[in-house]
Amino acid sequence: MNFLEERILRDGIVKEGNVLKVDSFLNHQMDVDLLDEMGREFYRRFNDRPITKVLTIEASGIAIACSVARCFHVPVLFAKKSKSVNIDGDMYVAEVESFTHKCKNQVIVSKRFITSEDHILIIDDFLANGCALQGLISIAESAGAVVEGIGITVEKGFQIGGRVIRNLGYRLESLAIVESMDATTGTVNFKSQ
Amino acid sequence: MNFLEERILRDGIVKEGNVLKVDSFLNHQMDVDLLDEMGREFYRRFNDRPITKVLTIEASGIAIACSVARCFHVPVLFAKKSKSVNIDGDMYVAEVESFTHKCKNQVIVSKRFITSEDHILIIDDFLANGCALQGLISIAESAGAVVEGIGITVEKGFQIGGRVIRNLGYRLESLAIVESMDATTGTVNFKSQ
Repeated sequence: MNFLEERILRDGIVKEGNVLKVDSFLNHQMDVDLLDEMGREFYRRFNDRPITKVLTIEASGIAIACSVARCFHVPVLFAKKSKSVNIDGDMYVAEVESFTHKCKNQVIVSKRFITSEDHILIIDDFLANGCALQGLISIAESAGAVVEGIGITVEKGFQIGGRVIRNLGYRLESLAIVESMDATTGTVNFKSQ
Repeated sequence: MNFLEERILRDGIVKEGNVLKVDSFLNHQMDVDLLDEMGREFYRRFNDRPITKVLTIEASGIAIACSVARCFHVPVLFAKKSKSVNIDGDMYVAEVESFTHKCKNQVIVSKRFITSEDHILIIDDFLANGCALQGLISIAESAGAVVEGIGITVEKGFQIGGRVIRNLGYRLESLAIVESMDATTGTVNFKSQ
């Protein structure tokens, strides 16, 4: 069991509806030492690739992406979830559906910041049905960039996202893969990796 | 002129409507080395205070807040802009108006993560009319926490937010205060500090 799985067992809370709350250390309150440990672990797993940029999506992916990008000495680029008046017209757009918020969002990335020269590492906190991830992949590939890898903090192994993305041939690494959870007993079982 | 002012002059873009675009290094693409330099500078300015937590608001405040919190060895807590099904009913709520997005949002923080024991450093990327900041202050004080200081990356000195917050007695430090901008010439003038 790795450091993240241990932390999830200690501080994660299982709720009805296959919801795993990690808001005391990951996506509301954030433990920066843990983020940095995750950053180093993703670096260890992907440093054989010539990463030029870390791509993530607001909001909770940003902190993890920064900890990863610090190790690679590359910039972070985060996709935004709604059209801001501060963003130019020239942007890549993908439509994604949020498992958590039960709604569809357009995510956008300015064309100025991603090009065919880029080798992208995509980072996000959760992978469930994979919609957000597919949006980020679509944006990177629209720009002609290479998606070198995808790093996920917590993958819900009983949902379809991970299988779809791996079947498409992407190198997807998840720090923790939840095989099953039980809200009654509060137990979480991880896939051994 | 400090490192941030120099970077704004080099890479910031002035747009009509008093919009300063810093999306190539601060709030869309992010330069992690710059974030860390800002983190160290905020630490230098506030390390006389017994900070227990850094409070910010999604999305673009998160990365800066993490760089600050790393120096203080404390957690980051970010206020969320919409009600998520993953957040418990027990939360502090404030209503804020966004200058950039021209809309009102509810921002929420779980009551579990902020208490009367906390000494809060609030961090955000932009200060214009001060609405977001007043929301964060209101949340911290609803919890009985002490707002020890407020660190802002870019303050628009020609808008009212900074004056209001300072008049209320808060210790507000901005790394760059824009006195005036001109979209025609692309010039930015900073208040000397």
